[in-house]
Amino acid sequence: MRDFSPDHRWLSINTATLRGAGPLDAIIEACARHGIRAIAPWRDQVAGIGLKRTAQMLRSSGIALSGYCRGGMFTAFDAAGRQAALDDNRRAIDEAKTLGAPCLVLVVGGLPGALAGAPQSKDLFAARSDVRDGIAATLEAARDAGMPLAIEPLHPMYAAERACVNTLCQALDLCDAIDPADGTGATLGVDVPDRAALRVDAPDRTALGVAVDVYHVWWDPALDAQVARAGRGNRLLAFHVCDWLVPTTDMLNDRGMMGDGVIEIARIRGQVEAAGFDGYSEAEIFSSGNWWKRPADEVLATCIERHRRCV
Amino acid sequence: MRDFSPDHRWLSINTATLRGAGPLDAIIEACARHGIRAIAPWRDQVAGIGLKRTAQMLRSSGIALSGYCRGGMFTAFDAAGRQAALDDNRRAIDEAKTLGAPCLVLVVGGLPGALAGAPQSKDLFAARSDVRDGIAATLEAARDAGMPLAIEPLHPMYAAERACVNTLCQALDLCDAIDPADGTGATLGVDVPDRAALRVDAPDRTALGVAVDVYHVWWDPALDAQVARAGRGNRLLAFHVCDWLVPTTDMLNDRGMMGDGVIEIARIRGQVEAAGFDGYSEAEIFSSGNWWKRPADEVLATCIERHRRCV
Repeated sequence: MRDFSPDHRWLSINTATLRGAGPLDAIIEACARHGIRAIAPWRDQVAGIGLKRTAQMLRSSGIALSGYCRGGMFTAFDAAGRQAALDDNRRAIDEAKTLGAPCLVLVVGGLPGALAGAPQSKDLFAARSDVRDGIAATLEAARDAGMPLAIEPLHPMYAAERACVNTLCQALDLCDAIDPADGTGATLGVDVPDRAALRVDAPDRTALGVAVDVYHVWWDPALDAQVARAGRGNRLLAFHVCDWLVPTTDMLNDRGMMGDGVIEIARIRGQVEAAGFDGYSEAEIFSSGNWWKRPADEVLATCIERHRRCV
Repeated sequence: MRDFSPDHRWLSINTATLRGAGPLDAIIEACARHGIRAIAPWRDQVAGIGLKRTAQMLRSSGIALSGYCRGGMFTAFDAAGRQAALDDNRRAIDEAKTLGAPCLVLVVGGLPGALAGAPQSKDLFAARSDVRDGIAATLEAARDAGMPLAIEPLHPMYAAERACVNTLCQALDLCDAIDPADGTGATLGVDVPDRAALRVDAPDRTALGVAVDVYHVWWDPALDAQVARAGRGNRLLAFHVCDWLVPTTDMLNDRGMMGDGVIEIARIRGQVEAAGFDGYSEAEIFSSGNWWKRPADEVLATCIERHRRCV
């Protein structure tokens, strides 16, 4: 397990952590000031300043991506909705490619209409079928573009609105069903002979894998076994951290800074690294009541300190 | 699958559903008025009017129990805390016996101190070890008293504060570890030759099983398989219903009335009955913002109508 205490070279900042810090150019500048080597931007933030300007700023600041947020949302009540989702995921792949992302993170979608507060169906089986079909269709475009897809299982409390993939086991079952291993690892047209191919700077990567976010999976009694399984399948594409606050006062936007909650983050990182992951630890903190109200420099300084001490 | 539409003979009311309706004697009287045949009372509500008076009222009104809420909370930071939990569970067993409950429901506990807002540990493994030891120790007293224990897996969003058993699979793994099947079913000293012994009015029951609450398990991709497994092991001791609202505004007390949310309750009941359960469907609705503010008669009339139409 890598020692994170001396520096923050393996810290990435998910830009949702700085939702209160203005547009993405200001966020990138703040990250550059703090020596952040990688970020994971959200599409709406990229759109806010434009894809071209985002790419230029990343180049000029020397900041890499640990992932691109996000594709997915495959579930829909009719064929037109499903097709619109596929079209949108193709655009997300193109954007991720333009920005040099190592993967496109997929939040797969919940019950159609639920996110807007008006669920049109209660059928989780149908939603999961949409997700499987949507990922399979998107994977073709992802292979063409050389852009790995990272399925992010979301906490079961988001099953209705955001993602009906709710455990790491379920995400890996999807990976195995859609992109079965051939013994050398499922790849973007290139065999993956060993773990080195999973390095964030390696050109050949698994085509379909998972993003492991401690907030979503920490409770899972099967976590360690499934992390090991993900490693065996070369599926570990991203690792996200924050913390689970006690009490949690909002189901979406009350995530904690690393160290302020009850997740054994370092223990989980140890498992993930033992399974072969050696990429960035991406801090993703939705916090409307606390961190989004603070200046970017304070948030980043705290992320850095906690990354070195608590991750 | 039983047809619930003609009447509400298989409806039980968990008395937490009527938290806004005054003390337990008023609740029992209201249930009797509506022809409710069974309730599942909470210990604090029983204590409020006294165990003896509760037993007298149940007898005089002819109302049975579908379960007793609750034992558990086995996790503690030190041996004294664990012993206090065991002592309390023995008292809960005695109370359940006095009231003629078919099972004592176990909410097993989360991280020590978390429920009070001050977690003393982040170690889920230790908490789960406490739970295993606590159930094993309590099972001896339960066997002596002839009172089955029903482990209730709670939704993963309660892992920190309330229960570190969060899936039906995990609960059944615990059952199998603590109370392994011998081919005829694990029993209270009596062989269980067939499913009939699981009937709520049968004297010989599984000693250790599970309570399946749709609110906690509806999202689980392994649900159907685990329900079938529970049936094979004669572990299905209780079935609780309410609904998952979209959006859910409070993690604890914003449960919905059956039919108002996105859970396919009837589908899950079908699975549970196909696995051999033929007891009460217990309505347990924590709803501080809605149902707890309404008169008991309105809540009960709605429960009855929804039981017949949506369960």
